[in-house]
Amino acid sequence: MKIALDVMGGDFAPQNPLLGAIGALQAYPDITLLLVGDRDQIAEEFWRHGGRQFIDRVEFVHTTQVVAMDDQAIESVRQKRDSSISRCVRLVKEGKADALVSAGHTGAVVAAATILLRTLPGIPRAGIATVIPTEHKRFLLIDSGANIDSDPTHLLGYAIMGSIYSRELLHVANPCVGLLSIGTEDAKGNELTKQAFKLLAQAGLNFSGNVEGHDLFENPVDVVVCDGFVGNVVLKTAESIAKAVMHWLRSELGRNPIRMLGAYLARGAFLSVKQKASYEEYGGALLLGINGTCIIAHGASTPKAIGNAIRIAREAVTQNVNNRIIQEMRRHCEAESENTAASRA
Amino acid sequence: MKIALDVMGGDFAPQNPLLGAIGALQAYPDITLLLVGDRDQIAEEFWRHGGRQFIDRVEFVHTTQVVAMDDQAIESVRQKRDSSISRCVRLVKEGKADALVSAGHTGAVVAAATILLRTLPGIPRAGIATVIPTEHKRFLLIDSGANIDSDPTHLLGYAIMGSIYSRELLHVANPCVGLLSIGTEDAKGNELTKQAFKLLAQAGLNFSGNVEGHDLFENPVDVVVCDGFVGNVVLKTAESIAKAVMHWLRSELGRNPIRMLGAYLARGAFLSVKQKASYEEYGGALLLGINGTCIIAHGASTPKAIGNAIRIAREAVTQNVNNRIIQEMRRHCEAESENTAASRA
Repeated sequence: MKIALDVMGGDFAPQNPLLGAIGALQAYPDITLLLVGDRDQIAEEFWRHGGRQFIDRVEFVHTTQVVAMDDQAIESVRQKRDSSISRCVRLVKEGKADALVSAGHTGAVVAAATILLRTLPGIPRAGIATVIPTEHKRFLLIDSGANIDSDPTHLLGYAIMGSIYSRELLHVANPCVGLLSIGTEDAKGNELTKQAFKLLAQAGLNFSGNVEGHDLFENPVDVVVCDGFVGNVVLKTAESIAKAVMHWLRSELGRNPIRMLGAYLARGAFLSVKQKASYEEYGGALLLGINGTCIIAHGASTPKAIGNAIRIAREAVTQNVNNRIIQEMRRHCEAESENTAASRA
Repeated sequence: MKIALDVMGGDFAPQNPLLGAIGALQAYPDITLLLVGDRDQIAEEFWRHGGRQFIDRVEFVHTTQVVAMDDQAIESVRQKRDSSISRCVRLVKEGKADALVSAGHTGAVVAAATILLRTLPGIPRAGIATVIPTEHKRFLLIDSGANIDSDPTHLLGYAIMGSIYSRELLHVANPCVGLLSIGTEDAKGNELTKQAFKLLAQAGLNFSGNVEGHDLFENPVDVVVCDGFVGNVVLKTAESIAKAVMHWLRSELGRNPIRMLGAYLARGAFLSVKQKASYEEYGGALLLGINGTCIIAHGASTPKAIGNAIRIAREAVTQNVNNRIIQEMRRHCEAESENTAASRA
């Protein structure tokens, strides 16, 4: 399996993508990586970090441009045709790679993938599916920022795709889907969620109705469906507050020697929560609904996070997630038209 | 000063409102409380909890109905005209109370206040202003759920009102206002925030542009402005995840005797974070923009939280927050029409 890695993307590029690549090459003997970026710069660093042992399993793909974090997403696709992001996407389009991984400008990755690869049949919009850890389980948040100002049919697509992801990649037998809203009663929400509620209730999903912000971590369902604006705000708030609580606790623990001793004795517990709550353990988010496999990694990705993103790309390809989405959407459309025919008869 | 307290509202009514009332009567010698609810039931319990010492500073207002949590908000105002919520609001309308506090059905309180008291001149919609604690400061989130599917002018009103609240009640000299969005660049966001951005930038506020989810707790501004749907999801997510992290940590700390000893030695740190992060310390949220003073307390309010909600009601009346809003809106409208005239000339 060939995976294209955007080596120029992310806050710590090219080092972290390259170190992540080495980790993934070690862990998954069946993958080949296409390392996409400025060849001179990245090859030298790759060899320096000990990449030479994998010389048969990497190819360098030279590009001359990089999408900056303040570039406009859609403009970047048009104006930087030789960016590492666009090149990764084209490698997938041309069948030279089975999947791509980028920790670069999220909007640019979404735009390039949508414009160059298009969405799968029956899917109106792609959505970013992010796995979020809680104490006892993980849940999937979709969309966490691909598509702003979504409409109800987009949310229906997310629900169907999210269920497939949860089943195939997270191994949940009958994933329970919730619609993120501001009250659990059916009629609570904004115009978007009220309309989406009706669609989701009729879609043959294991739909548990509306879920609220406090259900996310206290009583999580398997798949949480929402508009990309809301999902992005929730995701970033969640990341930030978990970090803030731990940081706050650390300052309190440092206030006197007895607390410091206590913290030292209990350090395993802190480490364990920090580790389990860290996005690094979960790596990249799958951009679901694209005709291709595209993983969006966190901008601040560590080598471990990049390695995990590559793992997810590999799993998504192996499990053939896209084919399952196409089949499920076809089934859904057939059921829809049967219902329409029946109601007309 | 007279404050109407909905004794029937909240998950632990009437006990917690009554205990909160006693605490507030002790703490603030200048207030009189109108205890609104089923008189037989609440009077007996009030005396039992030692309320008799305040016999001169309480009045019981008998009502026969209670808004249930699954009642429709607007319907509840029309159909339960003698509910404790509607009665509290009418006491303010009739000038018999200076402010009201309720931990009952939030939607019903918003609906009753909006229908019966109306909004202040120049304010298109009321917004719930919630104070949220972070490690080093507090910030104000407005709207945290009064008004769903808001438009840009509503957000402008929130920004102006939030600045006044922050200055007058939280004593921030020149409050910095941020617009909750999904990227810090001006052009990032959904249709609502993009339009609101322009209005906020021209309003003569100390506007710092877009803020993202991770700025909320890591790099907070003083006032965060957003649509009520988004604000409600963020607030509930934030409450839930802080609790979840602490809970998670507790289970990890209990895994072996050494960690348990460590946790015991460091218990002061945990307690301190728990206390500072708790909504109880901050009490109720002010429904800003209503022609009257209305405090919405958390459904799960403890007696302490109710006491704090009463404190906020008292401060809002003392600081004359509503008059300041009216003046500020008048100034804003005048500036607007001068600008329009100037651009026409």
